[in-house]
Amino acid sequence: MLLDKIQKTNDIKNIDPKDYDALAEEIRQFFIEKISVTGGHLGSNLGTVELTMALHLSLDLPKDKIIWDVGHQSYTHKLLTGRKEGFEYLRQFHGMSGFPKRKESPCDVFDTGHSSTSISAGLGLAKARDLAGEDSTVVSVIGDGSLTGGMAFEALNNASKLKTNFIIVLNDNNMSISENVGGLPNYLNEIRTGKSYQNLKVKIYNSLLTKQYGEKAISHIRKAKSSLKQLIIPSMMFEDMGITYLGPVNGHDIAAMTKAFDEAKRLNNAVLVHVITEKGRGYAPAEKHPARFHGTEPFEIDTGIPSNPRTVANYTDIFSTVMCKFGARNDKICAITAAMPDGTGLKRFRNMYPDRFFDVGIAEEHAVTFAAGLAVGGFIPIVAIYSSFLQRAYDQIIHDVCIQNLHVIFAIDRAGLVGSDGETHQGIFDISYLSGIPNMHVLAPKNKWELSDMLKFAVDFDGPIAIRYPRGNAYIGLKDFRAPIEYGKSEWIYSESDIALFAVGSMVKTAEKVRNTLKEAGKNVSLVNARFIKPIDEEAVMKAAENHKLIVTMEENVRRGGYGQAVEDFVNSKGLGVKVLNISIPDMFVEHGNCELLKKEIGIDADSIVEKIGKLI
Amino acid sequence: MLLDKIQKTNDIKNIDPKDYDALAEEIRQFFIEKISVTGGHLGSNLGTVELTMALHLSLDLPKDKIIWDVGHQSYTHKLLTGRKEGFEYLRQFHGMSGFPKRKESPCDVFDTGHSSTSISAGLGLAKARDLAGEDSTVVSVIGDGSLTGGMAFEALNNASKLKTNFIIVLNDNNMSISENVGGLPNYLNEIRTGKSYQNLKVKIYNSLLTKQYGEKAISHIRKAKSSLKQLIIPSMMFEDMGITYLGPVNGHDIAAMTKAFDEAKRLNNAVLVHVITEKGRGYAPAEKHPARFHGTEPFEIDTGIPSNPRTVANYTDIFSTVMCKFGARNDKICAITAAMPDGTGLKRFRNMYPDRFFDVGIAEEHAVTFAAGLAVGGFIPIVAIYSSFLQRAYDQIIHDVCIQNLHVIFAIDRAGLVGSDGETHQGIFDISYLSGIPNMHVLAPKNKWELSDMLKFAVDFDGPIAIRYPRGNAYIGLKDFRAPIEYGKSEWIYSESDIALFAVGSMVKTAEKVRNTLKEAGKNVSLVNARFIKPIDEEAVMKAAENHKLIVTMEENVRRGGYGQAVEDFVNSKGLGVKVLNISIPDMFVEHGNCELLKKEIGIDADSIVEKIGKLI
Repeated sequence: MLLDKIQKTNDIKNIDPKDYDALAEEIRQFFIEKISVTGGHLGSNLGTVELTMALHLSLDLPKDKIIWDVGHQSYTHKLLTGRKEGFEYLRQFHGMSGFPKRKESPCDVFDTGHSSTSISAGLGLAKARDLAGEDSTVVSVIGDGSLTGGMAFEALNNASKLKTNFIIVLNDNNMSISENVGGLPNYLNEIRTGKSYQNLKVKIYNSLLTKQYGEKAISHIRKAKSSLKQLIIPSMMFEDMGITYLGPVNGHDIAAMTKAFDEAKRLNNAVLVHVITEKGRGYAPAEKHPARFHGTEPFEIDTGIPSNPRTVANYTDIFSTVMCKFGARNDKICAITAAMPDGTGLKRFRNMYPDRFFDVGIAEEHAVTFAAGLAVGGFIPIVAIYSSFLQRAYDQIIHDVCIQNLHVIFAIDRAGLVGSDGETHQGIFDISYLSGIPNMHVLAPKNKWELSDMLKFAVDFDGPIAIRYPRGNAYIGLKDFRAPIEYGKSEWIYSESDIALFAVGSMVKTAEKVRNTLKEAGKNVSLVNARFIKPIDEEAVMKAAENHKLIVTMEENVRRGGYGQAVEDFVNSKGLGVKVLNISIPDMFVEHGNCELLKKEIGIDADSIVEKIGKLI
Repeated sequence: MLLDKIQKTNDIKNIDPKDYDALAEEIRQFFIEKISVTGGHLGSNLGTVELTMALHLSLDLPKDKIIWDVGHQSYTHKLLTGRKEGFEYLRQFHGMSGFPKRKESPCDVFDTGHSSTSISAGLGLAKARDLAGEDSTVVSVIGDGSLTGGMAFEALNNASKLKTNFIIVLNDNNMSISENVGGLPNYLNEIRTGKSYQNLKVKIYNSLLTKQYGEKAISHIRKAKSSLKQLIIPSMMFEDMGITYLGPVNGHDIAAMTKAFDEAKRLNNAVLVHVITEKGRGYAPAEKHPARFHGTEPFEIDTGIPSNPRTVANYTDIFSTVMCKFGARNDKICAITAAMPDGTGLKRFRNMYPDRFFDVGIAEEHAVTFAAGLAVGGFIPIVAIYSSFLQRAYDQIIHDVCIQNLHVIFAIDRAGLVGSDGETHQGIFDISYLSGIPNMHVLAPKNKWELSDMLKFAVDFDGPIAIRYPRGNAYIGLKDFRAPIEYGKSEWIYSESDIALFAVGSMVKTAEKVRNTLKEAGKNVSLVNARFIKPIDEEAVMKAAENHKLIVTMEENVRRGGYGQAVEDFVNSKGLGVKVLNISIPDMFVEHGNCELLKKEIGIDADSIVEKIGKLI
């Protein structure tokens, strides 16, 4: 096995070049085997095997720096930096992360997880290098999907000022998680499919960029370009951003890439190397179903079929179904996703109502303000974005939706702990960041029927309204509790005395367990499904205060700014004199791992809660 | 007076074209006179007089829609839509806003205030128009500075897909608030200064875009363009975003602009009309000092000198001075601004340490992640961004700074109420959105010396740390209270019993007044300067609980997720049994007006607080 020769960083440099392709093949097989067991990001990693090998061959790690945009394509990088064993426990609690982590290796220089950050971070590292008078190469690897995110453009605009070397590798697979959208991808596509690119452009550049003739020739072509442009291409606003372009280069041809990277290292400015890769390459099911194998659960290698096929609907499925019904009933309803028609469940809506479906690309800020425009225009936009990604549109939610008090509905999937993606993806802030905004309303359903009811309520409502629901199986308990959703009202599921559990969304299920345990111990316990996180149901809290000694609030969100603090604030300000136990996520980032394990670890599982209650009564 | 003929929307259409220039001159004089008394945005409005007139002449308002990016350049629009009287009370409490407001006029279709939102909103309105089968023109007017904000790019990327008309007017004055930065402005500048532009490009386009020859000719030129591009300009990544470009057009030539707008209206796709304007045009002091007259206080018309020159330093001045000292003492310190070297006070640092100063343009997201990159590279970045603008980088603060626990310092100016800019600019969320983030630390100084001490503390600290300070004069009271800043510790200013005031930053001054009044009424009152908002000083709260009946928390921030709720949470969870009165901003957007008036209105001035305390004791 060639892979056995890769024990630590730079060992790849001892591999005979004639064996590169064989090593790439071994790496692919390794990923398919490992990820088929652990789950993880497969397609993007199969696509970047040779690209990563070429970077490691051209660079001197860890002196040189690679920043991986999003970071889920860094598996080959982990493998080539001595972390082969880590794949046994990939994305598992206390196991290796699926993303670059500075604490894992000196070769992971910048943690990533969300899209479009790598050029900004790389530019910061390049500037620090220059200020410190050091000499190293900084490379940001960014996908074509990530490039549609606005901050990547902000960074490019700034990179153009740099008078020292900085390499941006555009890993272009013509995909974000799903298909790409917009003018930029069209343009990239034009380059990719241009008949002449292999012949003319690459040749011209490769010959011009030799040291001997380089500077003069480039200056010459620039001038020619400029005068021609004056005549015929005034529409090209961005052409002169001042970033040198090299490519396109075949992203599975290691020799071509190392040559391009070596050329790029010689320039004293920002250089973009355009590398064409194929997502899922080398594994037929992943080539055929790129969205499904973007992030995958364990699967059978032969067929690509999930090892443990889902038998229960998850909240995304419920949302998907409800949206299709809405689409038929109300022709004002529009759906918006930021590059995730599959992940959000909007694919079916797209197929049924293509005119009212908008995939804006990885562009959460635009998504929200675009929705505000639709709302002003008389439509009812439903913006479906994961909790942690919606963080990026916080200002737009305040400034464009809530100040104008517009009827925009936010369907917030992956709210609460998400498990194996870890810190960057945990949806544990949305209650706090949304509830502080005037005019905003925030709800969470206890089970699958309530998600449906709440969506209906949101459509009939008028004003900004968000519904948060978690990753994973939709809860099907408490089926018989389906009182109509009333503005600002909680739902009393069990009305007793002594202890009142006020649970938000996913925590209603946990609260049931807590209640059962307490009941077995002979306690009287009420259970209230909060439903409304903002505004809180003040009447319900007052009622509970009358005949309970303890209110327990429960939420999958950080404590600061959460539901529990709002309840405590109300109890204190009214002088209700009832004790409140606040169960929420402690002030820490929560790592990757199985959600049940994580909940136990941070003390929000049923046993931990029972124990905490026990200490108080 | 021609201006007297403009009583309502579309009255401008009754003006004789030969009088347009005279009307423009009257409008300029009107603005200079009015703004010299009320203060307001002068330069941008003097620059857009003819542009606005041309838009009103070409469009049919309010059926057609204009979205003003940022919105502070909408004064001519307000004047032409019957709001002349409003300028008497411009930006004053219950008076006319300095920004577009839907509640003011049906011609204000979308509220703005922050940068780079107009294309997204316009695209939403255009899509709503198409879905509703209506026929109207949607125009987004965006400055060249705003175009560097990432979400504008996200919107352009999406606009390119549109198969119906949508007009983007690029109001290019080669300025953001200060000078522009980056590759995009360079490119625009190249067009502006290109010798041939008046001759060739405009001619070609104007002749090609006639109805008669238009489509065919455009298709022809596109092909020619495309094949030439294949040969010589592979670096132009964005050229084919698919947005038609018209211009550049002289933004003070009404005839040229109406012609261009009429052309633009005929196209079935997104069109960008590039209009060149001169900021401050027609008023010599504003032409000469564009940054000073961007937003101005009342001034003497003859000289441009402020009517009430500042005699007391504001917090920005203090920050400015401290930064210069730091720059000299520690060569690791870097300063970052998002297009506001003047507003943030970093201009002097820039002049003294240009290598360590970074103006990234209007690009808050990039600013923060770039800072994270500098921090990983061993430097100490101080990011100076106003409270309400930092909202835009919320995800980057979480994802790029706090998860990695990097030593990035946030200098948050304009925290709390800002006054005349109103809803969009009030800095009333930062305590909530920052305090919920693990690893983040949040501080606020009581007076000018404490800002200096806190900045020093922040530099010596290691980890994410934010210091929030308000707009306006730096408080110079309590000079003798200058105990060293200690991690997590509040400062006991007066230690008595019964009532303990825990005040955050600017509210310490208010708390002094409250205390004096209560003392006069014979009460015993302690005064604690909170200093640390996160973490709160639990020891101080416990100590206060021992011998006080009431703790009063005071902050210029919304209640949800604020300092007060954190204190209430602690008091409740420890069962301290002391009553807490939470003084904070109620759950509402706060309009424009004098800050003292606003504080009274929302009940956080000294009198209101005394009254609230009186009800409790």
